[in-house]
Amino acid sequence: MAALPSGVLGALDPTSDRAVFRQIADQLREAIDKGRFKEGAKLPSEAELTEHFGVSRMTVRNSLSILQSEGLVSSEHGRGVFVRPRPPVRRLASDRFARRHRDQGKSAFTVEAEAAGSRPEVDSLEVREERSTPEISARLGSARKVLARRRRYLMDGKPVEFATSYLPLDIARNTPIAEPNPGPGGIYARLEELGHRLEHFDEEVRARMPAPDEVKTLRLASGVPVIHLVRTAYDTEGRAVEVCDTVMAADAYVLAYQLPAT
Amino acid sequence: MAALPSGVLGALDPTSDRAVFRQIADQLREAIDKGRFKEGAKLPSEAELTEHFGVSRMTVRNSLSILQSEGLVSSEHGRGVFVRPRPPVRRLASDRFARRHRDQGKSAFTVEAEAAGSRPEVDSLEVREERSTPEISARLGSARKVLARRRRYLMDGKPVEFATSYLPLDIARNTPIAEPNPGPGGIYARLEELGHRLEHFDEEVRARMPAPDEVKTLRLASGVPVIHLVRTAYDTEGRAVEVCDTVMAADAYVLAYQLPAT
Repeated sequence: MAALPSGVLGALDPTSDRAVFRQIADQLREAIDKGRFKEGAKLPSEAELTEHFGVSRMTVRNSLSILQSEGLVSSEHGRGVFVRPRPPVRRLASDRFARRHRDQGKSAFTVEAEAAGSRPEVDSLEVREERSTPEISARLGSARKVLARRRRYLMDGKPVEFATSYLPLDIARNTPIAEPNPGPGGIYARLEELGHRLEHFDEEVRARMPAPDEVKTLRLASGVPVIHLVRTAYDTEGRAVEVCDTVMAADAYVLAYQLPAT
Repeated sequence: MAALPSGVLGALDPTSDRAVFRQIADQLREAIDKGRFKEGAKLPSEAELTEHFGVSRMTVRNSLSILQSEGLVSSEHGRGVFVRPRPPVRRLASDRFARRHRDQGKSAFTVEAEAAGSRPEVDSLEVREERSTPEISARLGSARKVLARRRRYLMDGKPVEFATSYLPLDIARNTPIAEPNPGPGGIYARLEELGHRLEHFDEEVRARMPAPDEVKTLRLASGVPVIHLVRTAYDTEGRAVEVCDTVMAADAYVLAYQLPAT
């Protein structure tokens, strides 16, 4: 039986009120938090943990399933249990919508993926006119029909985000915005060419557990929440010209904001 | 047997591949999303759903436990299953750290709670000197020992947030910042009086499932993730003067940011 690296995991506390399988989960969690098991590393096997703690295999499995439900580890069938990677993509909101990037014709997603050393990809693109929901209507003003642009973003083949942009039809219909490829700089560059110079964006960030269709679309592991981000773009006349509704795999992102103190 | 309000829930699709308990969960979820069951409303009882769909009580229970794991409903023992409230507190980051609020001596949390019509409260306050973790040291520069200020925030008696501020000892020791009550305007007002005029804040936002101690501290319902927010305050000389590590109940908050388009 292989021994564990010494000092990484301690002994159980027989005097503790805390159930044994929770004590084992606590020790493993602490070892992960402190970097003693690194991202992507394989945890000790069930047999090793059983031996080390002197408990049943069922107890060890219960401990591991706690960590799995917390999104800290994932079990790969027949291979073992691995420490899940921490969010690799830093999404810097204040930089992401800077006009200079639009001018260069690079999408914010491409810039972020490149910074994370990942291969960006977009699929499931769908552009259509549809009835607005009450929530989108409330944000866009009174638009009853909207142009909806749906797409999924992937990094290195893994889905990380599903986004839908909604635009008032009177702005978007019969323009490049309604084309599958709206051209360099994306729809924000086209909005500005159409006379809607952008002034600011509002972003609202929530987190929740995914619905089943989101688990499927983003291929989410168990215990991984989603970040639900709703962004509204305003032009210099104060009109809301786009609402972008984005559902992101929470394990793929850290959202970064810079706020002035004045 | 009480009938369901007509039209709120439809029939099952016998030709679908989708398991019956999932179809029922889908219908209930859609009815909640569309506001046919409002926040705080009681869902139809198990008996009513059993009758309506012509399925076993176990099937209905499986459907309800899906919605519970998604954080959409909560089961109150002996009373029924209720639609959970959506995030009530709008945390507007760009306004929250404005100097004018510090000058008025109101904490950002108090302002937000009042806007949400809730009674704010702070407990579990702890102020102490301690060794820094590698992560905090990396953010604060080289500080090996820090002043840590821990506190829990509650609204209407419900815990919503647990926050720890870390400050370099050479700045904070033997100042009002090390007192339980640092005085009007809080530690940011004191930092500025000590000559560290604030220039900007960086905020990093992640979401994940809670660890067991976080479930306890924030009294989280099942299926509720946490938002983990780490904010660093910089003075006009570019020095990091505080790191605030905050864990928030995701069902209590929507984070709002305003971003310039220029």
